[in-house]
Amino acid sequence: MSSFGSLFRVSTYGESHCASVGAIVDGVPPGLALTAEDIQAQLNRRRPGQSNLTTPRNEADAVQLQSGIEHGITLGTPIGLLVRNLDQRPHDYSETDLYPRPSHADYTYLEKYGVKASSGGGRSSARETIGRVAAGAIAEKYLKVAHGVEIVAFVSSVGKIAIPETKGEEDPESDEAADPVSPEFLKLIQTVTREQVDSHITRCPHPETAEKMVERILRAKERLDSIGGTVTCVIRNLPPGLGEPCFDKFEAKLAHAMLSIPATKAFEVGSGFRGCTVPGSKHNDPFIALPNGRLGTKSNWSGGIQGGITNGQDVYFRIGFKSPATISQAQQTAMYDGKMGELAARGRHDPCVVPRAIPIVEAMAAIVCVDMLMQQNARATATARLPAVTTLPPTMVLPPKPAN
Amino acid sequence: MSSFGSLFRVSTYGESHCASVGAIVDGVPPGLALTAEDIQAQLNRRRPGQSNLTTPRNEADAVQLQSGIEHGITLGTPIGLLVRNLDQRPHDYSETDLYPRPSHADYTYLEKYGVKASSGGGRSSARETIGRVAAGAIAEKYLKVAHGVEIVAFVSSVGKIAIPETKGEEDPESDEAADPVSPEFLKLIQTVTREQVDSHITRCPHPETAEKMVERILRAKERLDSIGGTVTCVIRNLPPGLGEPCFDKFEAKLAHAMLSIPATKAFEVGSGFRGCTVPGSKHNDPFIALPNGRLGTKSNWSGGIQGGITNGQDVYFRIGFKSPATISQAQQTAMYDGKMGELAARGRHDPCVVPRAIPIVEAMAAIVCVDMLMQQNARATATARLPAVTTLPPTMVLPPKPAN
Amino acid sequence: MSSFGSLFRVSTYGESHCASVGAIVDGVPPGLALTAEDIQAQLNRRRPGQSNLTTPRNEADAVQLQSGIEHGITLGTPIGLLVRNLDQRPHDYSETDLYPRPSHADYTYLEKYGVKASSGGGRSSARETIGRVAAGAIAEKYLKVAHGVEIVAFVSSVGKIAIPETKGEEDPESDEAADPVSPEFLKLIQTVTREQVDSHITRCPHPETAEKMVERILRAKERLDSIGGTVTCVIRNLPPGLGEPCFDKFEAKLAHAMLSIPATKAFEVGSGFRGCTVPGSKHNDPFIALPNGRLGTKSNWSGGIQGGITNGQDVYFRIGFKSPATISQAQQTAMYDGKMGELAARGRHDPCVVPRAIPIVEAMAAIVCVDMLMQQNARATATARLPAVTTLPPTMVLPPKPAN
Amino acid sequence: MSSFGSLFRVSTYGESHCASVGAIVDGVPPGLALTAEDIQAQLNRRRPGQSNLTTPRNEADAVQLQSGIEHGITLGTPIGLLVRNLDQRPHDYSETDLYPRPSHADYTYLEKYGVKASSGGGRSSARETIGRVAAGAIAEKYLKVAHGVEIVAFVSSVGKIAIPETKGEEDPESDEAADPVSPEFLKLIQTVTREQVDSHITRCPHPETAEKMVERILRAKERLDSIGGTVTCVIRNLPPGLGEPCFDKFEAKLAHAMLSIPATKAFEVGSGFRGCTVPGSKHNDPFIALPNGRLGTKSNWSGGIQGGITNGQDVYFRIGFKSPATISQAQQTAMYDGKMGELAARGRHDPCVVPRAIPIVEAMAAIVCVDMLMQQNARATATARLPAVTTLPPTMVLPPKPAN
Repeated sequence: MSSFGSLFRVSTYGESHCASVGAIVDGVPPGLALTAEDIQAQLNRRRPGQSNLTTPRNEADAVQLQSGIEHGITLGTPIGLLVRNLDQRPHDYSETDLYPRPSHADYTYLEKYGVKASSGGGRSSARETIGRVAAGAIAEKYLKVAHGVEIVAFVSSVGKIAIPETKGEEDPESDEAADPVSPEFLKLIQTVTREQVDSHITRCPHPETAEKMVERILRAKERLDSIGGTVTCVIRNLPPGLGEPCFDKFEAKLAHAMLSIPATKAFEVGSGFRGCTVPGSKHNDPFIALPNGRLGTKSNWSGGIQGGITNGQDVYFRIGFKSPATISQAQQTAMYDGKMGELAARGRHDPCVVPRAIPIVEAMAAIVCVDMLMQQNARATATARLPAVTTLPPTMVLPPKPAN
Repeated sequence: MSSFGSLFRVSTYGESHCASVGAIVDGVPPGLALTAEDIQAQLNRRRPGQSNLTTPRNEADAVQLQSGIEHGITLGTPIGLLVRNLDQRPHDYSETDLYPRPSHADYTYLEKYGVKASSGGGRSSARETIGRVAAGAIAEKYLKVAHGVEIVAFVSSVGKIAIPETKGEEDPESDEAADPVSPEFLKLIQTVTREQVDSHITRCPHPETAEKMVERILRAKERLDSIGGTVTCVIRNLPPGLGEPCFDKFEAKLAHAMLSIPATKAFEVGSGFRGCTVPGSKHNDPFIALPNGRLGTKSNWSGGIQGGITNGQDVYFRIGFKSPATISQAQQTAMYDGKMGELAARGRHDPCVVPRAIPIVEAMAAIVCVDMLMQQNARATATARLPAVTTLPPTMVLPPKPAN
Repeated sequence: MSSFGSLFRVSTYGESHCASVGAIVDGVPPGLALTAEDIQAQLNRRRPGQSNLTTPRNEADAVQLQSGIEHGITLGTPIGLLVRNLDQRPHDYSETDLYPRPSHADYTYLEKYGVKASSGGGRSSARETIGRVAAGAIAEKYLKVAHGVEIVAFVSSVGKIAIPETKGEEDPESDEAADPVSPEFLKLIQTVTREQVDSHITRCPHPETAEKMVERILRAKERLDSIGGTVTCVIRNLPPGLGEPCFDKFEAKLAHAMLSIPATKAFEVGSGFRGCTVPGSKHNDPFIALPNGRLGTKSNWSGGIQGGITNGQDVYFRIGFKSPATISQAQQTAMYDGKMGELAARGRHDPCVVPRAIPIVEAMAAIVCVDMLMQQNARATATARLPAVTTLPPTMVLPPKPAN
Repeated sequence: MSSFGSLFRVSTYGESHCASVGAIVDGVPPGLALTAEDIQAQLNRRRPGQSNLTTPRNEADAVQLQSGIEHGITLGTPIGLLVRNLDQRPHDYSETDLYPRPSHADYTYLEKYGVKASSGGGRSSARETIGRVAAGAIAEKYLKVAHGVEIVAFVSSVGKIAIPETKGEEDPESDEAADPVSPEFLKLIQTVTREQVDSHITRCPHPETAEKMVERILRAKERLDSIGGTVTCVIRNLPPGLGEPCFDKFEAKLAHAMLSIPATKAFEVGSGFRGCTVPGSKHNDPFIALPNGRLGTKSNWSGGIQGGITNGQDVYFRIGFKSPATISQAQQTAMYDGKMGELAARGRHDPCVVPRAIPIVEAMAAIVCVDMLMQQNARATATARLPAVTTLPPTMVLPPKPAN
């Protein structure tokens, strides 16, 4: 369905060639200072036509707020918002009358719904993500103001071009696996800013790698081809205690959110797949006392989540985006009627989606965080009304701790 | 929360040291032949003590059905079921009074709830998964009888020991990436049976690799250490049209389900992370006419899902499980009060969870499939009551096709 | 929250003085012929300014469809829609700066959200119902085309002026209670059409009563006062089997839907409160064989629902609407600061809401019906894929029956 | 479906003749002192065989707690619980092989599910409510300890025998309607205790009326007939701000909860249906300053809810229960095969359900209250983290107020 979230809930509508795309954002905490500019900033990072690396479709994507805000303050009621579709050229897609585009959604939408939009894949259009980005900007504003949370996503690879991230040499015969993530990459995760990310059109904050990525994307473009990549995202300053086991663990909700973004194929949190090769004795994150009197961890292979619940360390994760399915290169493929033919898409499309995916990843991360935060608020506040537990063994009760 | 699914919904309860663990399975289609044996078979594959590779905790895990079935036929009402906890030894866990176990859930449960179970991590116990496996067995029985669906999961790697799965030599400088998955591995995915999987205690159906995995696990055990691994799962014969964009895409629900399993860190579908390095021209799955008059795809890098909707091809995916956090080796780590100390867990634990994770992965896959199937049933049946659409251009309407 | 429904789900936004009010209608069956006119017809019945019985606020309430429909056919994707707020006069509400209006939502909104809209009660504005009516018109169109369902609501009372509905003389000392509803009123329920309802400005299809209602409403208006009333609604031709026990019984969802409409205080289905005085022997609806070979009931005190599930008979129910809280008459009441004062509201408001409530009641009824229908579709279609049950005693299985 | 609630969620299973009935209660605030006795107390008030007014079926209904509690303190994890079905006599129901019992659920369950339980109506059995009562007892314990909330339900009428509740003489021609509820009845609502309710087997706290009710119920029993009644319930000390407009208004959730109880036909809150005849000038509840510096209301026709949100006054409502459908008196009705016959049920059944319905009504009320409270907690705590709003006109922001 087209709703996501339980207490902070976004519902979206709109496809490529309709009047507008939009969203209703329900459950926004009241009393938050919020303007259209807060939202527009992230929409601008998502919109097409930002550089020669992206689709030439030209959309200003100016958000129009409809409700839920007065005098720049949220009322707690649903925020309706929309963005007009302006630069529509439906005739660009005429081939899709005959062909289901390989690895696109044309075929499956038709199988599922029995009818399909003239543009082919209906809601699989990248324009569907506008509502997500807008809702995420609201969530992010709250997280920043209320908890100082920072969410920063960046492009970590394009094709085979990746920010160097593994520990150098490793003996493949040895059980003593290398660290799943290099200290340098961990440092990047801990410190990277949105300004650094935006300082390059690829949104890769590692300058040498970024240059190679440009070459790689332009090479794909020249070949009328496309290329995939990965996005890494970090959430800093997130309070501990978020995530709702056993089914709505924090990483499970994150994975759900990320794999709902178009073109995603993979998700890993913390040490991820590579961590699965590292023995427990090395992979475990020992606890240490922090200067503020609370417990932290020495390493953070867990990616800030243990038992499905945040532990106060940085949450970081990586998402794989496939190469865009729509390419201008000719493809041998069957028509709807089964006859083989040659399809060369003439539409406008991105040779690589990851630079524009950055605000979408951040948005979905922010939505998960606020939703999980509000769920934990509900519980913690309920418990705070109860008399202190005195009948449990002291080891079963939260010890007194310094204020957050 | 402890419920999963919308129309087919499992709710679970129970932790390591309480009276029983159990589940309520709601929304089961009525009229399905179902016995306790159908469920017990998968519980037996999950239960501890199956071999020297797993925890010595000894639990028969005999399921007791409570409701929703008469004369071996489901009534459509909720099925209550439970498994008694028999072999409890809470004193095994006495260290957890002082220490939060590194990378375990003790610390985060205490942060979240303010109190913790005497066993430490509460619902993060592996026994929580019993309810999932039981519910999954019901889902699987339906899928098999009604649609001939086959779900088979297997261990694809332990530590660095993996079933060979990539195409041989590859020039790292070339854009011409190798296939993301080797033909041999794809063949395995297409044909592997549950019998083949169970023919080896590791549940790896590649005999040479399986032997190496045993060595690797026993080596971890000897070292009082642990090791992670990956599980690959395939779903065959799934009807096209399943998945609910834009937020409940089939892969998004799968990812949610899989990352809710304890100890999981990563998920990828189809070509996964490796596919992100392959150009679109090579990664796209061209359509071909099938002998039955329907469309199939020549390759299947999409993993049977396009635009978030199944396309009728095999759905396959991989999940990464970290090395178990509980190890008997001494660890330098802080106590709850912040003082550093040395923790050596004395409880019973698995040195590697992937062999026992197989039925859990299959269960969660089955639950997602039935839930998505019933959601699509709801829509497709609603549309079937409408008069045929005659006002749309023919290219926008599903062409007549042979019966499924 | 501002979403309703599970498979057919409406989400709404907007309050009295924002840019627009609108809705996203998700889960609409694809392939349905649908135009703006289908929706506008019900919006016109709801809009203010229809007669001298309603508020003078003048809004054309022209719906603007945004997505989910092409060439007049639904695509199965969310339908975004909105209605501009044109005739805003926020200064009309200046008293609300000082006073919480008695029995209005000003006070509780402020308590709940900590901030309030300049118009006072935020989402408690009658304009919130526009999204419901639009969504309901879509639901109703589907029900009509696919199942021939008819939904007709009408005004059954205004103040003490009611359509005669009880059986004449009754001995209050006798256990032998009169019929809970008179044969004449039952006949009206069975046959009333929307045209009959709209033939009078009160939307009461009983002409003599309607005239008295006009007098009563105008009397309230003259006195700068307001008056309440009741609405009766019937749903005809609804398939049997709808409703999801044990918590989502058909009447429970109906009650939820109806009590979510502003100003409602009461709900009863079938014989309702009066039926509670009638002995079971008289209140039970005996089964009879219908000419088509199916079973029907001789009487219908159940209101078409038994055990929370529709039985194929007419579903009928009644909703009580209180007298509007906003009146121009002076009221002695406390200001926000606790000082007593005299409040005389100067805004535009209805002296009686029931005539305009008719399309809102119909809309919520239609939404419940489609949602429950799709949930039952999901189950019934799942069961239809199973082999026939042969191991149950024949008395436990649905006997063969004629086609619907 | 068989789950209710969003943050505090009960899921139930079980029918009349299966092994047990039970529930999973998820979202219970951790740190609450809770024992089996807390739950058993309400189960005892619900169980059959309490007096000669109820069914002779004899069930101890002893609750067995399975999980979620240690040392008498809730852990925040799901509480599994069950009650064995002991006194089963399935042969009592043999007539139901041939006949769908009039106004019972046999027919609709068979239509809905295609199969039916041997006992007939499956989940429509009164034993289904055990899980509700147990969950409600947990909710109620929390509400009492954390907020001093009192929930008291009582029998307000049986057949035509009702606690006198309307203002004496009234001129039916006059617009000047009497008070919807008499001062005496309001006083009863404000002060009634559970002890007073339980002091009579009818659970009617008005002694003279209670005696007449006994006669009425025994008369029904002698006649092999049944009789309905109404239950009134009050919730005192509930915090203001609860309820989630626009669809999950407090009264909408209450109505949903109450109409999901077997045999219910009607719901009204505050002044209810009768209030719809009272002009706004009389029906409005003027605000007054309370001694504690907060605002209260002079009258309370609103029933403690305005705009779908609690205002801090007593919430009171009334539910209508129909006469039980199962009677031993012979009924002329059709068999499943359409042939007419004479059915005389031989099972054990209550001639009147309202005395045993009391704890069920209280339970569902408590569940709604906790769920709504936790939802408001989530929002209010989120807002409390934000800086004070200084840019809104002062009249739009919550003024400072004394501590709760």
